[in-house]
Amino acid sequence: MAGEQQRNQHGDSVILLIHCPDRRGLIAAVTEFITKNQGNIIYLDQYVDPIKQIFFMRIEWELENFLIPREKIGEYFDTLLARRFEMKWTLHFSREVSRMAIFVSKLPHCLYDILSRWQTGEFVVDIPLIISNHLDLKPVAEQFGIDFYHFPITPENKREQEAKELALLKEYRIDFIVLARYMQILTPEFVQQYPNRIINIHHSFLPAFPGARPYHSAYERGVKVIGATSHYVTADLDEGPIIEQDVVRVSHTDTVADFIRKGRDLEKIVLARAVWWHLQHKTLVYENKTIVFT
Amino acid sequence: MAGEQQRNQHGDSVILLIHCPDRRGLIAAVTEFITKNQGNIIYLDQYVDPIKQIFFMRIEWELENFLIPREKIGEYFDTLLARRFEMKWTLHFSREVSRMAIFVSKLPHCLYDILSRWQTGEFVVDIPLIISNHLDLKPVAEQFGIDFYHFPITPENKREQEAKELALLKEYRIDFIVLARYMQILTPEFVQQYPNRIINIHHSFLPAFPGARPYHSAYERGVKVIGATSHYVTADLDEGPIIEQDVVRVSHTDTVADFIRKGRDLEKIVLARAVWWHLQHKTLVYENKTIVFT
Amino acid sequence: MAGEQQRNQHGDSVILLIHCPDRRGLIAAVTEFITKNQGNIIYLDQYVDPIKQIFFMRIEWELENFLIPREKIGEYFDTLLARRFEMKWTLHFSREVSRMAIFVSKLPHCLYDILSRWQTGEFVVDIPLIISNHLDLKPVAEQFGIDFYHFPITPENKREQEAKELALLKEYRIDFIVLARYMQILTPEFVQQYPNRIINIHHSFLPAFPGARPYHSAYERGVKVIGATSHYVTADLDEGPIIEQDVVRVSHTDTVADFIRKGRDLEKIVLARAVWWHLQHKTLVYENKTIVFT
Amino acid sequence: MAGEQQRNQHGDSVILLIHCPDRRGLIAAVTEFITKNQGNIIYLDQYVDPIKQIFFMRIEWELENFLIPREKIGEYFDTLLARRFEMKWTLHFSREVSRMAIFVSKLPHCLYDILSRWQTGEFVVDIPLIISNHLDLKPVAEQFGIDFYHFPITPENKREQEAKELALLKEYRIDFIVLARYMQILTPEFVQQYPNRIINIHHSFLPAFPGARPYHSAYERGVKVIGATSHYVTADLDEGPIIEQDVVRVSHTDTVADFIRKGRDLEKIVLARAVWWHLQHKTLVYENKTIVFT
Repeated sequence: MAGEQQRNQHGDSVILLIHCPDRRGLIAAVTEFITKNQGNIIYLDQYVDPIKQIFFMRIEWELENFLIPREKIGEYFDTLLARRFEMKWTLHFSREVSRMAIFVSKLPHCLYDILSRWQTGEFVVDIPLIISNHLDLKPVAEQFGIDFYHFPITPENKREQEAKELALLKEYRIDFIVLARYMQILTPEFVQQYPNRIINIHHSFLPAFPGARPYHSAYERGVKVIGATSHYVTADLDEGPIIEQDVVRVSHTDTVADFIRKGRDLEKIVLARAVWWHLQHKTLVYENKTIVFT
Repeated sequence: MAGEQQRNQHGDSVILLIHCPDRRGLIAAVTEFITKNQGNIIYLDQYVDPIKQIFFMRIEWELENFLIPREKIGEYFDTLLARRFEMKWTLHFSREVSRMAIFVSKLPHCLYDILSRWQTGEFVVDIPLIISNHLDLKPVAEQFGIDFYHFPITPENKREQEAKELALLKEYRIDFIVLARYMQILTPEFVQQYPNRIINIHHSFLPAFPGARPYHSAYERGVKVIGATSHYVTADLDEGPIIEQDVVRVSHTDTVADFIRKGRDLEKIVLARAVWWHLQHKTLVYENKTIVFT
Repeated sequence: MAGEQQRNQHGDSVILLIHCPDRRGLIAAVTEFITKNQGNIIYLDQYVDPIKQIFFMRIEWELENFLIPREKIGEYFDTLLARRFEMKWTLHFSREVSRMAIFVSKLPHCLYDILSRWQTGEFVVDIPLIISNHLDLKPVAEQFGIDFYHFPITPENKREQEAKELALLKEYRIDFIVLARYMQILTPEFVQQYPNRIINIHHSFLPAFPGARPYHSAYERGVKVIGATSHYVTADLDEGPIIEQDVVRVSHTDTVADFIRKGRDLEKIVLARAVWWHLQHKTLVYENKTIVFT
Repeated sequence: MAGEQQRNQHGDSVILLIHCPDRRGLIAAVTEFITKNQGNIIYLDQYVDPIKQIFFMRIEWELENFLIPREKIGEYFDTLLARRFEMKWTLHFSREVSRMAIFVSKLPHCLYDILSRWQTGEFVVDIPLIISNHLDLKPVAEQFGIDFYHFPITPENKREQEAKELALLKEYRIDFIVLARYMQILTPEFVQQYPNRIINIHHSFLPAFPGARPYHSAYERGVKVIGATSHYVTADLDEGPIIEQDVVRVSHTDTVADFIRKGRDLEKIVLARAVWWHLQHKTLVYENKTIVFT
């Protein structure tokens, strides 16, 4: 099975993510473009927002025998279709391995979970660096052989430190960032460098309990279910497009410590699903929502 | 099986719900009171709030052979134990059938669900009347042979109509009220007549999306899970002690109509669970939380 | 919202379900057929079985302005596409209302649930008759104004009674049958009259606990989760293609009576989801599996 | 919070697990024994099997001020109560840290998950050794600084190798064993050395799909939900008392590789819950069922 999965992930295909105003003939036009050029479609999912009348599509086809050379596909698609239909699009090749940075603070559970998925080949991704505002998790980075950088943050030095972090991210050619329980708020200036490319895990069922100490608030309110939310980071704290959410039951016998313990499992699973979909190029953000093609 | 269930529900037992400041020896004292008087304990669950240091207990024992006569149990318990330990307590006999009123507006799904549970014997309860601010569901009441009263509500007549409703509830000797998607806010004066005895179903995962049109708000926010919450009604809208919550997954392909459709099933199941526990005297409200002994 | 939903369900569209050996160009060919004839595609989902190399598709388009007249669509599609690609296909018009028969025995919860969904307009379907091997639920049929027929079944009279039932189903022009906890096994001869058009609800998580008394078996085994399974009926008992499954947690404190009680909610929800998808023509059976386009 | 949790787990208390034939006065007798000797009960849960008429109890009290010295509690309890009521009992001190061995084969996800819970202090347990029939996961053991022993198993050498393993387990004073996707069947002789002290994770919703390759079987059957089961190991493969189960949804689009990937998360969470309860002495096995006091 491992072999099958490998092949699957590394099959030589191209993924196109599109959105544009809806109109008749979009699917026919895109599929004809691929088929006429001998491409074999191996995935197609599309969706029309019934209120905004926007068309969204994820389509993937094999490159073997495709008549347009790999490096020309974008240009041809843009010329022949995208301009005509006012499409916004991105192109991804299945063989390209993304480069991910992880930001952490003191809590290790999401970090361990991501690193074990990476080390066991579940996440086909490069993880060249970990950034933290604390030193606590440096040993974990070392345990997995990943570069670790320490940037303590104060209100005074935040912009300066973020500038250094951005330089580092550039140097490491990072494609996207995962905030694995990183307890600092990024400035809008930082966020706009990675639009829809910073994934956060918030330890509540948003929009319930945004901000700090959500498990304590949930306990105070006496909820019977707690949740976790993974979302792309925008300038508005905890307001970004939601990628995934899930919940677990609690009862009156659960203390805040139990909420935190049960929540850890939720957080790591919910974050891992979001990262998985992002890695498969199955997410597409439009305004404040994430379309997840599954 | 039905026979077994019947027997179970109609076994001749007594249920005691207690709360008091925690101190050593409470369980021993209560269990000794029952055992010394030849009572056979068939259920015991207790819980200490670790922060408020309050002791909560639900204990049930068979009345057969119990040395204290049924009508004297409360007095004896109060004299011998409750005063000593500053206990608040209520006593319920398994053979007493509660009397429930249902308030509805226009949506029928929760009403149908409750009535079918009642008619098939799942809910052992009397339902002598249904009250509504609309006439839409009168035929359903008639279909099930239940008295139906129509009280249209305007801001001007609300108190007057509620006074009539309260008179009716008294006349019908109602023990507790279920708001089965009743779309009016009850006044604090009404609510205080039935403290912790009015059960509402709110169509969101509280505290997310309180108030009106929660499915529309959830759709706008782009959540990946929707929920329903059953709670006791207090003077603060949607702030009462939560009895039960549950959720169901949604995706970007679900419209508001789909949210509403999926939510209906959630609402009826979540409300039914809350009513079930209330009927079994398994709920105990303390401040803003509901302890559910399961 | 109700208005929107109505419109949605009664929009004048046509639904095409297809399966055929996979080959290049299928999607392009089908979408071009629709688009060239001025059809506006409002739903497309397709899937290729990676092992069997079979292509499956559900596509829906609006009939307004479509150049091929309604009654000719099947013929044209067959001539122009289906034969060429060896497609098996069915065509459904959104405005056609299906006719459903319900088979029951003594348990009322699924019956009540279906009838309330029908009466409140959630299920847009005609339910002209209920058939039972017992008289217990006759009053429910009457309560909802539906014809009720009583066919007691013995090993000796089974074929004879089924023949009468089949005649009745024909007379009532029934499209599909829902077994709402019908406790008789249909003969293969009966089943083959309604291939993939009889929906059953089995009260376990199949393939665990097939056959009789699954809750008792689950209790004996000490499981921590119980389930329900909705499937199309085939000649092999409890072996038909699964449409939907779901589960609920149980604990050691739950008796068989509790399993049965909790299971009732599962059964009715799982069956309702299966019926919903069947009504939307979102299911497609291939060999022993059900593809559910969601 | 971490501090609070630590304190909680290391509070100086004693846990008593009891089962015996049910009779009147058991709870009163046990609680009086504790209270009379100045013990403060901090946990009590009890349950009577309604069919077998067996009484089960987990009770925990603080040792501070308790009049019976720690090392005499067992003796006193046995003399004063256990013999009288024919109780089977075990005593556990909250400050005693259990010693756990992990058996693995080639799959690393459960191993990583357990080790990260241990290293971050979620599991308060000693893990002195890992045993495997393969060398693949030796680096993981080294990464976490745990002794690793390699015992390749063939039909011919199985008993001999198990004898060596048992010697090692004795040498390391192991209290219980976790099979973290260990792909060998232990002999009954081995199992009986650790009755109800070997925890396995099976990658299906038992009793569905016992034995090898359950995800492949589930795929073949076309289920809509897959599961995982954690259970104590007995001489009968996959028949031991279930501790915990959970499920996740799958659809027709999921391949066997997807089942395996989704299943990994289930397996590690379900196994971790079982280990957590075992570590808290919250499980009590009776015949073929596990009572989990939560």
